[in-house]
Amino acid sequence: MLVPALSATMTLGPREVRHLKVLRVQVGDTLRVFDGHGHEALAVVTVLDDTRAELELGGALAGVPETPYPLTLAAALLKGDKLAEVVRAATELGVARVALLITARADVREIGAQKLQRLSRIAAEAAKQSRRAVVPVVMEPTPLHALTWEGHLYVAQPGAVNRIMDVLDWTAPVTVLTGPEGGLTDAEVTALTTRGAQPVTLGPRILRAETAPVALLGAIAALGR
Amino acid sequence: MLVPALSATMTLGPREVRHLKVLRVQVGDTLRVFDGHGHEALAVVTVLDDTRAELELGGALAGVPETPYPLTLAAALLKGDKLAEVVRAATELGVARVALLITARADVREIGAQKLQRLSRIAAEAAKQSRRAVVPVVMEPTPLHALTWEGHLYVAQPGAVNRIMDVLDWTAPVTVLTGPEGGLTDAEVTALTTRGAQPVTLGPRILRAETAPVALLGAIAALGR
Repeated sequence: MLVPALSATMTLGPREVRHLKVLRVQVGDTLRVFDGHGHEALAVVTVLDDTRAELELGGALAGVPETPYPLTLAAALLKGDKLAEVVRAATELGVARVALLITARADVREIGAQKLQRLSRIAAEAAKQSRRAVVPVVMEPTPLHALTWEGHLYVAQPGAVNRIMDVLDWTAPVTVLTGPEGGLTDAEVTALTTRGAQPVTLGPRILRAETAPVALLGAIAALGR
Repeated sequence: MLVPALSATMTLGPREVRHLKVLRVQVGDTLRVFDGHGHEALAVVTVLDDTRAELELGGALAGVPETPYPLTLAAALLKGDKLAEVVRAATELGVARVALLITARADVREIGAQKLQRLSRIAAEAAKQSRRAVVPVVMEPTPLHALTWEGHLYVAQPGAVNRIMDVLDWTAPVTVLTGPEGGLTDAEVTALTTRGAQPVTLGPRILRAETAPVALLGAIAALGR
């Protein structure tokens, strides 16, 4: 259960109460609570009525393992609800941050404040469902050339020779980048590799823009981190 | 473009014509055509009116690479439209066959003929989009214990020690198996491993039932096949 902050007594509102009821939680039950910033603990439900719940903090708890360094997904903007699905799966697969990109061939070039909020809410829900103590941050879209990263950047690129399992280096933060429907332009890929990005293959078939991030993050998760 | 069979002259109906118009195809253009059974060729559009198109076969064409042996996804039945998304992504990621499974914890235990047809149509569309010459076959649901396979079966299992990249063996057909929401039961996993299945990890976090197949097939594709 996501709470604003871990404290001795925590009060939850109607939305969380609805979630508790769906989970068939009752007074006296013990839950995991987390603050979305990496802190997680056990708490006991002491009050549960129709609109309000109170929890009392129990002991600290080892959270679900996070990646050795933060993992960022940098993904080109996508149409409709595709981004929501990508954010949800990326959260399960361990990302700490989603950077949204405006690229040459992206047919979406902006995103409303409301939609951005909705994506953050989806990240929070998905973090809760997969019991992660970290809620990924979904950042406002930036043009590709303005993207900055720490550590290593791997860009999914059809025809690339390197495989993620051969080049992935977890001694620093990791960013994986996937393009829009139609792909990144050659100029965009060159600009990225000039800045140190490493192209990686996702196999011989062309993937949709919403499948590529899940496939690439899936490969990283399947490596065990 | 999917056609019933490769022949010297091929006639297409209204549905295909709509697709050609979306793609802005005109008379004289050359297209890839394929029959869904691994045969692919080039064809020239000779007639294109509102409801009917004619194509003339050109030379044969090297298709998009297929896996060394057929790849099967065996996935527990899922609710609602989740199966559609799984079939679509699995097709992009190279499967030749989708086996639907009835498992102990699957909250869906059957699927109507219409829905099965719809899944086959989605596989055909996805094969076309990703330019595969093979359209995956979506099979009628079978109970898990009745599943048979040739070659190797890898089952996604939380807590497994082996990684797919360490055990994947492409000298025979490959099947990957993913469970329902809530997972396979211990008895189900034991029954599979007794029959030779190898459990593999998808990382330390629990994935939703619809994310696991994409992550696992993504890892296999990222290995380069």
